[in-house]
Amino acid sequence: MTVEKEGTDTPYEIRKKIRAGEITGPTAGMCPGYAQANLVVLPQKYAFDFLLFSVRNMRSCPILEVTNPGGRKLRHLGYDADVATDIPKYRIYENGKMTGEYTDVIGFWRDDLVSFLIGCSFSFEEELIQSGIEVRHITEHRNVPMYITDIPNEPAGIFGGTMVVSMRPIPCPLIPKAVAVTALMPKVHGAPIQIGHPEMIGIRDIGKPDFGDAVSIYDGEEPVFWPCGVTPQEALMNSGVPFAITHSPGHMFITDIRNAELK
Amino acid sequence: MTVEKEGTDTPYEIRKKIRAGEITGPTAGMCPGYAQANLVVLPQKYAFDFLLFSVRNMRSCPILEVTNPGGRKLRHLGYDADVATDIPKYRIYENGKMTGEYTDVIGFWRDDLVSFLIGCSFSFEEELIQSGIEVRHITEHRNVPMYITDIPNEPAGIFGGTMVVSMRPIPCPLIPKAVAVTALMPKVHGAPIQIGHPEMIGIRDIGKPDFGDAVSIYDGEEPVFWPCGVTPQEALMNSGVPFAITHSPGHMFITDIRNAELK
Repeated sequence: MTVEKEGTDTPYEIRKKIRAGEITGPTAGMCPGYAQANLVVLPQKYAFDFLLFSVRNMRSCPILEVTNPGGRKLRHLGYDADVATDIPKYRIYENGKMTGEYTDVIGFWRDDLVSFLIGCSFSFEEELIQSGIEVRHITEHRNVPMYITDIPNEPAGIFGGTMVVSMRPIPCPLIPKAVAVTALMPKVHGAPIQIGHPEMIGIRDIGKPDFGDAVSIYDGEEPVFWPCGVTPQEALMNSGVPFAITHSPGHMFITDIRNAELK
Repeated sequence: MTVEKEGTDTPYEIRKKIRAGEITGPTAGMCPGYAQANLVVLPQKYAFDFLLFSVRNMRSCPILEVTNPGGRKLRHLGYDADVATDIPKYRIYENGKMTGEYTDVIGFWRDDLVSFLIGCSFSFEEELIQSGIEVRHITEHRNVPMYITDIPNEPAGIFGGTMVVSMRPIPCPLIPKAVAVTALMPKVHGAPIQIGHPEMIGIRDIGKPDFGDAVSIYDGEEPVFWPCGVTPQEALMNSGVPFAITHSPGHMFITDIRNAELK
């Protein structure tokens, strides 16, 4: 299959290829215009705490859909989708430690599992680019730089920790536009949480992100920080929850929802 | 205590008077500028379903805060507040039926109770009035008219049913402004769900609301319908849940949050 062909496939068609094992790599750039989502799957015993954590920390953990316990179907995000097969790569966590990566998780499925689909900054990056704002890590073909801050999450049950942020350097004259564009998309993290002062949120070295890759910051630019969907994943791992499934980084669920619908 | 004095008291001071039993009536008009909230209290066993119902039906059930199980304190909405004492009148429901009204619910409190504070249209009505839009039921000193629609809620566990809406007649030239003002307040129900066509959402007689009072609709006006916080209360009652506490209609929790902060 060629890249051109992928570009013209619908999310439904791409998900079928993922389910068939024909696509097992990262989803970046697939189905332009359509939102991609993070996945967290937990036993129902922990689902109330995690849902409450999400509601209390909506900026970093914007819920797009939650399944019924045991259910693998979605009602809104994907026609005929199956959360246990339609992501290219999954991770299994046991007692907070990753124990394996799999192209489907049918063999791990249980009747008490609840799936959370969580908004992703891919959606607002497309809006930024269409607004004439360069997204540096895309230009430089790197992963977005992410940093663990000292901004406390509001805890819920076993989930706590601090906020993880993603960073994009923005030329100073364009910062108001970058804020305005993303503020209109609260389901995919919304407005920045910090502009230009990493030290104020506990980031010591902008050149050494905790996740992803460092990117160039040029004269006349400021680093701008947005709440990041890695926050709930960090909280999940640090909780030591006995069993969880997530997507593997970069291997997202491709939804039927256009980014523009998330405004 | 005089009305003038109430008008100058802070929400904290009013809540202390409510706790002391000095105020037991409706809260309409108290602490202008500050948001008031609906209350639903449920055993933890049903809290996941109800929180999921709220997340799935955020338009009618916008969550402002959820307590930890057993907790009576709030973290954001009210300094030193106690959800079991700081509302003028509570209702107890057993198996879906109201079994009594009380000025506090300390005697009913249990370690497994979770409290949900839910946004209220009082907040956007103030914005409408400040934008030069008359709110008819306020002018006519009536309760807002509310109607049960045929718009299905997205069910979650034992909670389902259809959406309840509130109605305000708006002069046609002001409808766009009424939409724009309320659309900016998603935590208090947001934009209207229907404009001018009650029959399209299953309302047969605009003169006979299911809750509240009918109001005048003049020539050149259209009835405008907003998602209403009675929706979760209806879902609660219809679920037949063994035990629940709510505020008594019109007897709300007065928060420390200004309406303008809910934008």
